[in-house]
Order: sequence, then C-alpha cells, then structure tokens
Amino acid sequence: MGGPGRGPGRRPGSPDTRGAILAAARSAFAARGFDGTSTRAVAAAAGVAPGLVHHFFGTKDDLFVAALNLPFDPRKVLGAALPGPPEGLGRRVATTVVGLWEDEARREQLLAFLRTVMTNPEAAGIVRMGIPAVGVPLLRSVVPLADAEVRVNLAMSQILGMAVTRYVIGLEPLASLPPEQLVDRLAPVLQQHLLGPSPGTASGG
Amino acid sequence: MGGPGRGPGRRPGSPDTRGAILAAARSAFAARGFDGTSTRAVAAAAGVAPGLVHHFFGTKDDLFVAALNLPFDPRKVLGAALPGPPEGLGRRVATTVVGLWEDEARREQLLAFLRTVMTNPEAAGIVRMGIPAVGVPLLRSVVPLADAEVRVNLAMSQILGMAVTRYVIGLEPLASLPPEQLVDRLAPVLQQHLLGPSPGTASGG
Repeated sequence: MGGPGRGPGRRPGSPDTRGAILAAARSAFAARGFDGTSTRAVAAAAGVAPGLVHHFFGTKDDLFVAALNLPFDPRKVLGAALPGPPEGLGRRVATTVVGLWEDEARREQLLAFLRTVMTNPEAAGIVRMGIPAVGVPLLRSVVPLADAEVRVNLAMSQILGMAVTRYVIGLEPLASLPPEQLVDRLAPVLQQHLLGPSPGTASGG
Repeated sequence: MGGPGRGPGRRPGSPDTRGAILAAARSAFAARGFDGTSTRAVAAAAGVAPGLVHHFFGTKDDLFVAALNLPFDPRKVLGAALPGPPEGLGRRVATTVVGLWEDEARREQLLAFLRTVMTNPEAAGIVRMGIPAVGVPLLRSVVPLADAEVRVNLAMSQILGMAVTRYVIGLEPLASLPPEQLVDRLAPVLQQHLLGPSPGTASGG
C-alpha cells in the first residue's frame, strides 16, 4: 500500500497522524510480520516523516504493542506478574488477568478487542505474533521450558475462554462468581498449563 | 413479534417453514427462557399450525437443541462421552471435543456458531440457557457435585478458548499441534475443572 514519499497534505501534529501511523503499522505487521516491518516503512505507508513514528510510539516494539490495541501494556503487566516462585505462577497470572477484566474502565475496551480478534483476520494476525513475542520470553525467565511456546498458547486459550464465557456470553453462575473465587478456579489450571507435567512425562494422575 | 394467528400465505411444506419456526423459536427462547416458551407460542409466532413444530422438530427439548444451531446434538455427544470412570472424565471430554473440531465437515459450522455467539446477543442468550440445561445433569450423572454448574461453565470456558485460540486466531504452535497431543494437554485441565478439588477443600498444591 501507500507510496514511498510523505503525504503532502498531512500536517505532523494533525489529530489523525497518530491514527494513520497505527493503521499503517497494523497492515504492515499483519502482512510482513514483526521482523519484516521497519518503522521507516510504516512512516512511508502512513505518509509521515520517520521521526514522527518515534515521536508518537517510541521503538518498533512499542509500536507493535500499540498496534495490539489493548487497554494496557502486556509487557508491563506480565513483567510484573510472572516473576516469583514457580509454584505460585498460576495464581499470579490468574490474579492479574481477573484484575484487568474486573476493572470496568478497561472491560469495554477488552471486549471490543476480543470481538475484533474474532472477526478481523488482520487483528488476529497481530495477536498471533504478539502472544509468543511477549509471553514466551517472560515464561522462560521464570522456568526454562522446552515447550514454553505451546504452554503460553494454552494459558492464553484458558484466559480468552474465561473472558468469552464470563463477559461475552454471560454464562451463569460463572458470570456472577466473585473475582477471588474465579481466581481460585483458574489458578490450578493455569499452573498446569504453564508449568505442570508435560504429557508423556506425567507421573500418575 | 409476529401476530397470534397463522400467516395466511405460508404453505406448510414450503422451504422456509422450517426456518420460520427456528427463527421464532430463537426469539422466544432468548426473550422468555426455556420454561417460558411453549411450542404452541412458537408456532403462533411463526404463523404455522402447532403440529408442524412437532413434525419438523419433535419435542420442545429437540426444538431448543435445533435453535442452538450446532452441527451435532450435544445431548447425544455428551451423553456418550461423560459416563464412565470419574478419573478418565477429562480425557473423554477432551477426546470428544477435539474430535468434533477436527472433523472438517463440522469445523466451518462450529466457527460460524462461535462468531455468532460472540456478536449476537440472542444467540448468546440461547447458549447461556443450553450449556447448563444439557451439561449439568450429565455431569451430575457421573459424580454428584454441589458445584456442578460452575464446573460445567469452567470446562466450557476452556473448550471455547481452545477453539478461539487454535481455530480462529490460529496461534502457533497450538494451531499445528497434532490432535492427540492437544487431547493430552486438555485432559488434565478439564479433569481439574470438572472433578478436581474445590477451592478451599484442596489438600496441598
């Protein structure tokens, strides 16, 4: 898309500059992946000077996180939740995730995010890149696991499924469960996904 | 909606009779719940003779299952999967669910179902009624649990989340995991959700 030059009519400070950069970034990440995308190419596609991408979004990493369109920075949130004793990891992640969803200021944005991911292949593509990029190094920083990738995927599947069931479908009694009880239910399951015995190496049970 | 009389122009055997009954049934179940809906009222809203509802769909139970719009009868599928030794329940459910999704003839319909539930409140309302109605008695037939309702909800959350992550988002490596390995990963988690220690009664870990 977009020509190589700067759009002649777009003023650097105009309100849609930020939006134009984000839209160009989403298309670029979805089409060419994280490694195949440069902030310079995003600037060109958005018709702005490369310096403006840095001005509005910082590094390419930051631009990617902005393109995810989450109402929080997953690097900060997970970076705070994951470190600690391995046996408490499932509970820390459950507490963090339930806390995000129970924050009413964030919930509408999270619901919009979820619906977009379900219906928009470009948004799904960015999430597909983002979950391993953010989650896997953080999990490996707690416990070095050969199968960290599939474990992060599985934890994500339980987290997304909880959100769909409790907040989108409103299935009862899950939808009315007090947050601390929801954490109690999710903690052992997230622990199993993230650090439990791998299939084939399990001893009993 | 719809008046109390029969639509004068609709012929009993016309191709849209079945569809008109189903649409009326979905509206009625979503608006008034299962108990508040009669097949007679559905017939009236669809503008057909009450006998036609029975002719096309059987009992009110059958009509409700048809309104769920799943490419299988959840009563038959779960009725076959749930009975058996409690310690193998998680694996039986995982095997059944993964088998349904891995059947390519069904997958497109299941994806359409999932997207509809995410975006259409009426469809969400019917699922909200259907999961407890179908799942809870079946789980109680395996093990009589006081908290069977929330356990069925939680198992459903993992199943829906797996579907979203593997088949909608296509998150790797989960999306490419061989089905038998996916079953191995889901079995212990579904076992915990369905029959694991309740929070507060757990002994250790």
